[in-house]
Amino acid sequence: MSPLNATHDPQRTSWVPSANDGNTDFPIQNLPHGIFRRRGTGENWRGGVAIGDSIVDLAAAVAAGIFQGEVLAVAQAAAEPTLNRLMAMGPKPLSVLRAALSQALQTGSPQEAALKPCLVAQDAAEYSVPARIGDYTDFYTSVYHATNIGRQFRPDNPLMPNFKWIPIGYHGRASSVIVSGQDFHRPHGQVKAPDAPAPQLKASARLDIELELAVFVGQGNDLGDAVTIDAAEEHIFGLALFNDWSARDIQPWEYQPLGPFLAKNFASTVSPWVVTMEALAPYRVPFTRPAADPQPLPYLASPEHSAAGGFDIQLEALIETRQMRQGQNAPVRLALTNYRHAYWSAAQMLTHHTVNGCNLQPGDLLGTGTLSGPTLDAACALIELTTGGKNPVHLPNGEVRSWVEDGDAIILRGWCEKPGAARIGFGECVGTVLPAKAG
Amino acid sequence: MSPLNATHDPQRTSWVPSANDGNTDFPIQNLPHGIFRRRGTGENWRGGVAIGDSIVDLAAAVAAGIFQGEVLAVAQAAAEPTLNRLMAMGPKPLSVLRAALSQALQTGSPQEAALKPCLVAQDAAEYSVPARIGDYTDFYTSVYHATNIGRQFRPDNPLMPNFKWIPIGYHGRASSVIVSGQDFHRPHGQVKAPDAPAPQLKASARLDIELELAVFVGQGNDLGDAVTIDAAEEHIFGLALFNDWSARDIQPWEYQPLGPFLAKNFASTVSPWVVTMEALAPYRVPFTRPAADPQPLPYLASPEHSAAGGFDIQLEALIETRQMRQGQNAPVRLALTNYRHAYWSAAQMLTHHTVNGCNLQPGDLLGTGTLSGPTLDAACALIELTTGGKNPVHLPNGEVRSWVEDGDAIILRGWCEKPGAARIGFGECVGTVLPAKAG
Repeated sequence: MSPLNATHDPQRTSWVPSANDGNTDFPIQNLPHGIFRRRGTGENWRGGVAIGDSIVDLAAAVAAGIFQGEVLAVAQAAAEPTLNRLMAMGPKPLSVLRAALSQALQTGSPQEAALKPCLVAQDAAEYSVPARIGDYTDFYTSVYHATNIGRQFRPDNPLMPNFKWIPIGYHGRASSVIVSGQDFHRPHGQVKAPDAPAPQLKASARLDIELELAVFVGQGNDLGDAVTIDAAEEHIFGLALFNDWSARDIQPWEYQPLGPFLAKNFASTVSPWVVTMEALAPYRVPFTRPAADPQPLPYLASPEHSAAGGFDIQLEALIETRQMRQGQNAPVRLALTNYRHAYWSAAQMLTHHTVNGCNLQPGDLLGTGTLSGPTLDAACALIELTTGGKNPVHLPNGEVRSWVEDGDAIILRGWCEKPGAARIGFGECVGTVLPAKAG
Repeated sequence: MSPLNATHDPQRTSWVPSANDGNTDFPIQNLPHGIFRRRGTGENWRGGVAIGDSIVDLAAAVAAGIFQGEVLAVAQAAAEPTLNRLMAMGPKPLSVLRAALSQALQTGSPQEAALKPCLVAQDAAEYSVPARIGDYTDFYTSVYHATNIGRQFRPDNPLMPNFKWIPIGYHGRASSVIVSGQDFHRPHGQVKAPDAPAPQLKASARLDIELELAVFVGQGNDLGDAVTIDAAEEHIFGLALFNDWSARDIQPWEYQPLGPFLAKNFASTVSPWVVTMEALAPYRVPFTRPAADPQPLPYLASPEHSAAGGFDIQLEALIETRQMRQGQNAPVRLALTNYRHAYWSAAQMLTHHTVNGCNLQPGDLLGTGTLSGPTLDAACALIELTTGGKNPVHLPNGEVRSWVEDGDAIILRGWCEKPGAARIGFGECVGTVLPAKAG
């Protein structure tokens, strides 16, 4: 957990004008990494860094001689078609690159003339999943989500007895992680009504969202080696937005006894920009729990972690139906929450994941699980917002939603804001549901 | 499901003498693929094919000009450091390579002189995991295993109501799949005794085995595209042995509600040789279920699948304790079973996995789940063999085992045998448990 430095200085401005608009997600204090190319060109994918409404094309910047000395090798890694090699380098080289980019992009930089031709408009770009994800693990770190879901199935005993002791996680599907903007078809699956004698194969009628954060693993650990809680963040590259689409009618029939499978692995959408841990440093918050709760076992706790293991990140889910799009109505908020409501931190997730010696690799994705907060308007899945479909959401244009319908786009946003610090945003994570294919 | 051809002819012999010993796992009718190098040399990994006690070094064979015409490109793919590109080619090119290798290795082949220098003794080789595994999914296809396990937790209702309708599967950890011969440390994890007020972090005291087959995916399918039951085997490259090590004291505390996690992902051992579906063709058997059982939904059934969707593969688990090794006593059998006892076939696993559009990729691994048979001596995990540790196994040398102890090696073997066909074997899948690291 490195201290704040000049790259965090809220007074620093950029010669890219759009970066200085106080509402941008991507001021010079952010500098998130992603993989892009100009849309429709079939160009090679390469790494870029978001600044205002533009992207610094790192491959072009390397070619233009922007980087010299020790930072050159880091910039070359960051310019590759996936971020894996950059992620593997760990936090120090990443910090060196951040400092160099911040200098080159700041107002008055002598590199402005050389770097300006390396900018690509975000409007003209398409994105790829930022890393080659070896393994994707999803956690279940919101006590509010776990309680809301549990209440529907076990009204008298909504929260499992293990929840406050162990960061619950399970393996998800890496191959079907797609990037924001990539649409997908409504899945088919076995569905069985409680009173039906047999299941049927049909298109899911209860398609849901899950607003999560994606934690991208940086440097890995060898098989057999556990990562301590205080070393955990050195193994985290950064955070992105993540929508873990879920078919709520497939899930209850398939998930006993080994957990969710086809209810999840048809698509999970990640945002293109990964915000580094260093960019988030001004938004660290204490990470503690009520004194009445069981405190974490020693391997999941430390004074440093209690003091600053949490992050104040606001997170929002919105819906844009086909009718809204056609009427050019703005998307409508479904939920607003904050990552500080999580019961288990990103560092605790990572430490727990490795306590048995499991090897994490650069580019692995850890989902936080649905980040529902304490109130209903902070519930981050329709199954919570509509109480399992029983209380549909009424949209301002008169439409009603129990579940996601064909043509609906779900938009996730995230940002950090406070006086005395620059706004740090995550951009958007968007997915539109296409009709089921003919079965 | 291609018909038998000259490569299956049980009369065909090889100029490699050890391939003609009736007991070898690797006669000329088998020709499994793997990745190897000479042990201790630090050579590049490359593809090979097992023949008798030797390996055909495909990189050397390509360089020696053994392959000409259309087969050359296939052999080049098979010679790479992972089998992924070969797997992606699908069954037809693989069959062309098999035919060429069978001709080149058969008694009297004019290529004997050129190919003989390309042989490496298996005794001098070390192996790598045969493919870069993108995703690993574990299934639960033995009704006997599901019932044995379920009886311990739910005596009145051992089998879940979904078991006979849906091939239960869940995602496992790809990064911790290791190859036979690679040892690993006993894992730590949270363990909670039923009457304890809180869990503890400790080394697992209930380490178990699971005898499975690994199904390696060949050609993949695009996200959104389902694979039909009759096309499923065109997407399967071949089978290997698989030991899904399990920590039975970590599992019950962590697995509700999302399934097993750290109880499994510390290590899973796969055998080095992948036996192709074509090599197994003589051992196809009908795949049907009792008329009193629910029959599979239409997407999981076809006349062709019922006629020949199963495989008659004998499978054995053995233990070699440190004391046995020191006394040079032979390993002792723990269980003997047969893949024909599976309730769901490999084709059904693959078809079900894709019915929601989930994209499988070349090199993905599908575990069959523990392949316990109908009798106790065919139970393929210690939790079944010892009834959860209550009835320890008594070994001939006087040792007793409830669970796997430090220094124990577990050896899996598999083979097909019948009159009128050549024996097709899988080699061995071996793993030795090292003591837990200091916590």
